[in-house]
Amino acid sequence: MSPYSADSLDALRQHIREFARARAWERYHTPKNLVMALSVETAELLEPFQWLTAEQSCHLSAEQHEAVRQEMADVLIYLTRLADVLEIDLLEAAADKLAINARKYPIDRAHGNALKYSDFSDD
Amino acid sequence: MSPYSADSLDALRQHIREFARARAWERYHTPKNLVMALSVETAELLEPFQWLTAEQSCHLSAEQHEAVRQEMADVLIYLTRLADVLEIDLLEAAADKLAINARKYPIDRAHGNALKYSDFSDD
Amino acid sequence: MSPYSADSLDALRQHIREFARARAWERYHTPKNLVMALSVETAELLEPFQWLTAEQSCHLSAEQHEAVRQEMADVLIYLTRLADVLEIDLLEAAADKLAINARKYPIDRAHGNALKYSDFSDD
Amino acid sequence: MSPYSADSLDALRQHIREFARARAWERYHTPKNLVMALSVETAELLEPFQWLTAEQSCHLSAEQHEAVRQEMADVLIYLTRLADVLEIDLLEAAADKLAINARKYPIDRAHGNALKYSDFSDD
Repeated sequence: MSPYSADSLDALRQHIREFARARAWERYHTPKNLVMALSVETAELLEPFQWLTAEQSCHLSAEQHEAVRQEMADVLIYLTRLADVLEIDLLEAAADKLAINARKYPIDRAHGNALKYSDFSDD
Repeated sequence: MSPYSADSLDALRQHIREFARARAWERYHTPKNLVMALSVETAELLEPFQWLTAEQSCHLSAEQHEAVRQEMADVLIYLTRLADVLEIDLLEAAADKLAINARKYPIDRAHGNALKYSDFSDD
Repeated sequence: MSPYSADSLDALRQHIREFARARAWERYHTPKNLVMALSVETAELLEPFQWLTAEQSCHLSAEQHEAVRQEMADVLIYLTRLADVLEIDLLEAAADKLAINARKYPIDRAHGNALKYSDFSDD
Repeated sequence: MSPYSADSLDALRQHIREFARARAWERYHTPKNLVMALSVETAELLEPFQWLTAEQSCHLSAEQHEAVRQEMADVLIYLTRLADVLEIDLLEAAADKLAINARKYPIDRAHGNALKYSDFSDD
């Protein structure tokens, strides 16, 4: 069970499910297709950052910020849709992963070391 | 304001923020670096699906399903971290995007048409 | 017909180098930025395939085929530019990798087994 | 030194084609699957750069450089394989694209302007 009470992602999941059903898109929403769509959206989020310096990426213009916000929305929408199709509880999965990572990257060893220890991912 | 009440993503955001702070990873968490990390995690999610048929992707083994679940957790973790750094409300952004898409893909025209109208994204 | 005699990647590399120099883009062409650009282009190549069935992806329309061809060109251009900046001989690298893979995926064991052995990559 | 005389992509294409045929991998090499594999390899190339500064990305260690070289090899291998399956001449496609881009980004306007004009891609 997720430690994050009152799962508001549930409402989003329901909304997207109905959106897809109303348009008869369900047949296209295989996990294989949805991970591809998620990849496409993630790259669209990458695009506005490709030529920016690290510093510039911290100070987006209002226009850039809004564009990035919309791309992040697309990523969350496809991630939520994929989780729905695969019957995965995203918040529970994230909580489980953070617990794994807390063991994998103990605070003392990971302190300030990005190259070896800065991943939330354990791969 | 998000129509999704009781934002449980907030708790995840706080958890990740403290996780990063305790390990002094904040200096690495520029938006530019975080979108790259998000892209890497998305591709790790793509990997188990690359050689599967559409049909096989709908029937993952328990082991495949757990691996996919963990990769989806990583995607959500980095997406949430990026949203925190950029001060973006993910659920509000998703709700706004679905409203845009509802206008862009009206139910009657979008019905069952994946090639032209099946994207949640409007790009 | 290719303007590069003897289908030469060397000539392409030179062409791109001069293209970038003439526009004073060299300052932006750090390896970090170029791998991001390569990722963006790869995703643009992924996009036209996301909702297609495997079968449909084998029978692209003339219009789809040309769009895909242009995206593949972008991928090759950025890959070649990155190799130039990092002083990597792409064809030598590919030959070395295929030699590694020939040992890793011996013909008898790899025969027809995509899930375990179908990667050229050894990761 | 490359075993491909006259740095030939044609020879690489033939080599990969025989490699796949000998292992009966052709059935898995639909365009849809191959673009996914290409995306996965591109992200593996992105991974070693995600936490590096722009400056660090220009000064890779010998070990990092070799890892990057192998990932770039994988990208070229899948790109070449996809081009073979789709009957696309990669070098011709790249030359055509550079001609398009030379018109799109005229030297005087594009000079030193990365944010608006630094893309080889015209998307």
